[in-house]
Amino acid sequence: MGGLLYHEVIRRGLSRLIEVRRVVYSGRTRFQRVDIVDTEVFGRMLFLDGISQLSTLDEHIYHESLVHPALLTHPEPRRVLIIGGGDGGALEEVLKHRVVEEVVMVDIDEQLISLTRRYLWEVNRGAFDDPRVQLIFRDGREYIDECSENFDAVILDLTDPLGPSRRLYTLEAYRGIRDIIGDEGIMVTHAESPYIYQREFLTIHRTLSEVYRIVRPYGAWIPSLGPYWMFITASNVHDPKAISPGEIERRLRERGIETKYYTSELHGAIFTLPKNIMEALKRGDAGLSTDERPLERLL
Amino acid sequence: MGGLLYHEVIRRGLSRLIEVRRVVYSGRTRFQRVDIVDTEVFGRMLFLDGISQLSTLDEHIYHESLVHPALLTHPEPRRVLIIGGGDGGALEEVLKHRVVEEVVMVDIDEQLISLTRRYLWEVNRGAFDDPRVQLIFRDGREYIDECSENFDAVILDLTDPLGPSRRLYTLEAYRGIRDIIGDEGIMVTHAESPYIYQREFLTIHRTLSEVYRIVRPYGAWIPSLGPYWMFITASNVHDPKAISPGEIERRLRERGIETKYYTSELHGAIFTLPKNIMEALKRGDAGLSTDERPLERLL
Amino acid sequence: MGGLLYHEVIRRGLSRLIEVRRVVYSGRTRFQRVDIVDTEVFGRMLFLDGISQLSTLDEHIYHESLVHPALLTHPEPRRVLIIGGGDGGALEEVLKHRVVEEVVMVDIDEQLISLTRRYLWEVNRGAFDDPRVQLIFRDGREYIDECSENFDAVILDLTDPLGPSRRLYTLEAYRGIRDIIGDEGIMVTHAESPYIYQREFLTIHRTLSEVYRIVRPYGAWIPSLGPYWMFITASNVHDPKAISPGEIERRLRERGIETKYYTSELHGAIFTLPKNIMEALKRGDAGLSTDERPLERLL
Amino acid sequence: MGGLLYHEVIRRGLSRLIEVRRVVYSGRTRFQRVDIVDTEVFGRMLFLDGISQLSTLDEHIYHESLVHPALLTHPEPRRVLIIGGGDGGALEEVLKHRVVEEVVMVDIDEQLISLTRRYLWEVNRGAFDDPRVQLIFRDGREYIDECSENFDAVILDLTDPLGPSRRLYTLEAYRGIRDIIGDEGIMVTHAESPYIYQREFLTIHRTLSEVYRIVRPYGAWIPSLGPYWMFITASNVHDPKAISPGEIERRLRERGIETKYYTSELHGAIFTLPKNIMEALKRGDAGLSTDERPLERLL
Repeated sequence: MGGLLYHEVIRRGLSRLIEVRRVVYSGRTRFQRVDIVDTEVFGRMLFLDGISQLSTLDEHIYHESLVHPALLTHPEPRRVLIIGGGDGGALEEVLKHRVVEEVVMVDIDEQLISLTRRYLWEVNRGAFDDPRVQLIFRDGREYIDECSENFDAVILDLTDPLGPSRRLYTLEAYRGIRDIIGDEGIMVTHAESPYIYQREFLTIHRTLSEVYRIVRPYGAWIPSLGPYWMFITASNVHDPKAISPGEIERRLRERGIETKYYTSELHGAIFTLPKNIMEALKRGDAGLSTDERPLERLL
Repeated sequence: MGGLLYHEVIRRGLSRLIEVRRVVYSGRTRFQRVDIVDTEVFGRMLFLDGISQLSTLDEHIYHESLVHPALLTHPEPRRVLIIGGGDGGALEEVLKHRVVEEVVMVDIDEQLISLTRRYLWEVNRGAFDDPRVQLIFRDGREYIDECSENFDAVILDLTDPLGPSRRLYTLEAYRGIRDIIGDEGIMVTHAESPYIYQREFLTIHRTLSEVYRIVRPYGAWIPSLGPYWMFITASNVHDPKAISPGEIERRLRERGIETKYYTSELHGAIFTLPKNIMEALKRGDAGLSTDERPLERLL
Repeated sequence: MGGLLYHEVIRRGLSRLIEVRRVVYSGRTRFQRVDIVDTEVFGRMLFLDGISQLSTLDEHIYHESLVHPALLTHPEPRRVLIIGGGDGGALEEVLKHRVVEEVVMVDIDEQLISLTRRYLWEVNRGAFDDPRVQLIFRDGREYIDECSENFDAVILDLTDPLGPSRRLYTLEAYRGIRDIIGDEGIMVTHAESPYIYQREFLTIHRTLSEVYRIVRPYGAWIPSLGPYWMFITASNVHDPKAISPGEIERRLRERGIETKYYTSELHGAIFTLPKNIMEALKRGDAGLSTDERPLERLL
Repeated sequence: MGGLLYHEVIRRGLSRLIEVRRVVYSGRTRFQRVDIVDTEVFGRMLFLDGISQLSTLDEHIYHESLVHPALLTHPEPRRVLIIGGGDGGALEEVLKHRVVEEVVMVDIDEQLISLTRRYLWEVNRGAFDDPRVQLIFRDGREYIDECSENFDAVILDLTDPLGPSRRLYTLEAYRGIRDIIGDEGIMVTHAESPYIYQREFLTIHRTLSEVYRIVRPYGAWIPSLGPYWMFITASNVHDPKAISPGEIERRLRERGIETKYYTSELHGAIFTLPKNIMEALKRGDAGLSTDERPLERLL
């Protein structure tokens, strides 16, 4: 009954208590508070500034959902850019695609990556040491604004739109990414929760829709995160809904990808949304997130 | 910060704190503790014995998911039996099907239904007064065991397998229902959560599989319940996966059904499960729930 | 385990969870949020703006400690003024003193008093109906500022120094009271907690010391309030420490007072404080609470 | 808001949430779960099996209250036995008495003492290294039962009566201690909380009263423990109430004792109890704690 708990505020009026077996690490980097704890229910968990980021028990659901739909929709993603993703889980999934020749990962927080390499090895499993990886410790938005290279795919694996990461959820950021991927590329971002943070989800969707022709939301339930979670792919040519499960299956095999959660059949199902979410998207009354007025998750 | 909270234990090591604006009703019936509270986040919520049953904000997700896939899979469900469902939400969805001529609803707790009629009108909206409805206050399992009538569909809308309701999650109960629906009928039950209560979900699935040829799990996320939630249809002839969205659409129109969450496209998607759940189902190492050793949700 | 709780923040970093059996009343008056709840541990409790005020189980400890030391120190308190005290508990204790001929009670919140008369009868037991009582619904500070009458004793039974009640914890308020009681009178206030809210306690003490020659802190532990609680008497002539237990005993009998907690021996003991509190008082480095910069309890 | 908390159940229906800055140590010894955490409010705290034992902010209140009243009541305590007290705080206070020539400390948990020496140095400050100290790692009750030595004073500094420590709260244990101290000695024990654990307090008091002629309860509020806390001295000849503050003051000086909380005046005050506690003690309807039916704190 008594003992150590992690208290996570989901939003004003709703929170969770998670029993903690052991505090593996708890401290501050230059950029954020980092808590890595072993829990009764979800295995090892990572919290940044008090908000759950992943658990060893179900991080594959999150990372497979974030990475594979977009990367498999692209016929030949050779160069991939990851913004954020300091735990290395997205990186690990990207590297599973044999076709990928180079991954640039830009994370602002070098200390965080030292911590996740040490304490969350189960999540990144040596991914940081893959010769195809180039790690850059820098503000993601700055990198995007100054980037003159091209990438086939950009993956936004960010903390929620609170504080500095907000500048990676804006029209200007999405335009910068479009310049990087061109018309032939694809991007993906996680996109908050469809009911609990509906305003945030709709704002991200609308802002992407200003920049890209094909914007496809889909979701997954990751137990340790609490609410259901959304993702959105955006591209000017690539439509994940338009690719048959057969083609997805072929690419999975060709690229040598083993998954625990994602399948080609699931790819065919996840882009079908419930009526209430589709109608909320259609209403189109969400705000636009801009550098001047960036989206901020309300607490 | 301070004030009234509802504390709900999800399972050992995990709980939720939900801010309460107003306690609408709190007391005990002959069978269970009933709390009806207005919350900050989910509107009005119903708790039975401390476990969340529904909220006015999202009960349609639960009830549409419980009722429509099974009833639309059946070509002509004229007589429907609901066991449990004291809030009337499932009843309301069943009655939307014009083809339904008679609904028998068996709930053990008459006082609960008085309370839900009074305080959760938004959920049942006069459904109890529909002339097609016959309300029987009796133990659901007893009713099944002694029933000599036939029904086209049986809907199990139960409290979780804790206490007396456990006897409605057993092999013997499912056999009794099969006798009631015969080879031509279909049944559906909610089936706990695929990760958080995985043992419970797999046990229900395996037990149904002993009795029925076609057993189809599917899921939905209902925000106020916390974890993702599963449902399972079971039948000897009717396969919800085998019906095309077009046919579902036709039946929706023919029966005059308006929904907020469910669509024919969604019907085509929800039966596709992630790999980890499919593999857990295939392992087939779940226990069997019997009257002698009924499934009990661990706390 | 699960169920209704009252969450009370004691201060930043420390809070309590109190199991609630029944919410008796919960709403807002013009001035404050009022929650009256039946708890597992403390009987019926009153919370104002989320802060515990009393419980039926131990309110006598609070009210006897607030009223009797000051009133028994005064040789003949015939006219008594209570500021605040909307639950009527202090009033009941004052009326026990036969010598008291008139009590004026000034509380800003008429609705609160209707609620406490109805739901906390056990606390006030008809005290409001005593013919010696005059009830005035008005801001306490305004009353003090405009009062041209004299009283033998003034009892401050206020909410904590948060929001409007802060103006009753200032130098100006204490001076106004001194004008009302003159050199022959005595006042008493509750004074926060000696460790948990030490700054607040020391500030009240220092501010009173600017106005009165004899300032005597003493304490009591009231289980339902959580932390230990302080009170302070202030007067220019009456010193509760200087009166022998024998004289207190004589006055108790003469005035016909029955108590549950307070005794003449206890009177002789409570003014002896631990060394650490005495030293904190002697350091004299506490701030002064003035109308311009009133004391405010930090959260 | 979010983050690490320590949840302590005070009793069924009442608990505390304490914000944790850092987990210094968390693990199990052979005998108990040990959590040492740095908190926002109370400095460093020690929890055994989820129950708060002390904080660096106020341990002096507890340890001075436990040790000095009994030891100063004895005219010449040269040999002192401490049972429990694994944090070394009571030991430190005992050693302040110059007159003490030898202290035997018996604690069952050697690992706990290693931990408190390392992480709670602020509490024991080298006390374990004093040449007058003999440390024995053994079950306290066994030691008492087999002890053939004499001591002038015995100090019980135990965990609450839950689990194995219950055998140190029984008639048989108190008789064994009387055999050790003889008619000339004195013992003291902490004695739970007068309201929150009233049954427990009264049972300890009654059980001691079966063995000793002079049994004197007194209390102190130690903020980090939550509820007000009681202690009881027991002896056949020494009465702490019968010694004048002047004599206590003389002994304090003679023995060279510096305190932060306790004073000779306080000694004169603390044995005066409120009426409700005195009456509860007089009712004499508490149970007797025996080896066969030992007191157990209810949760």
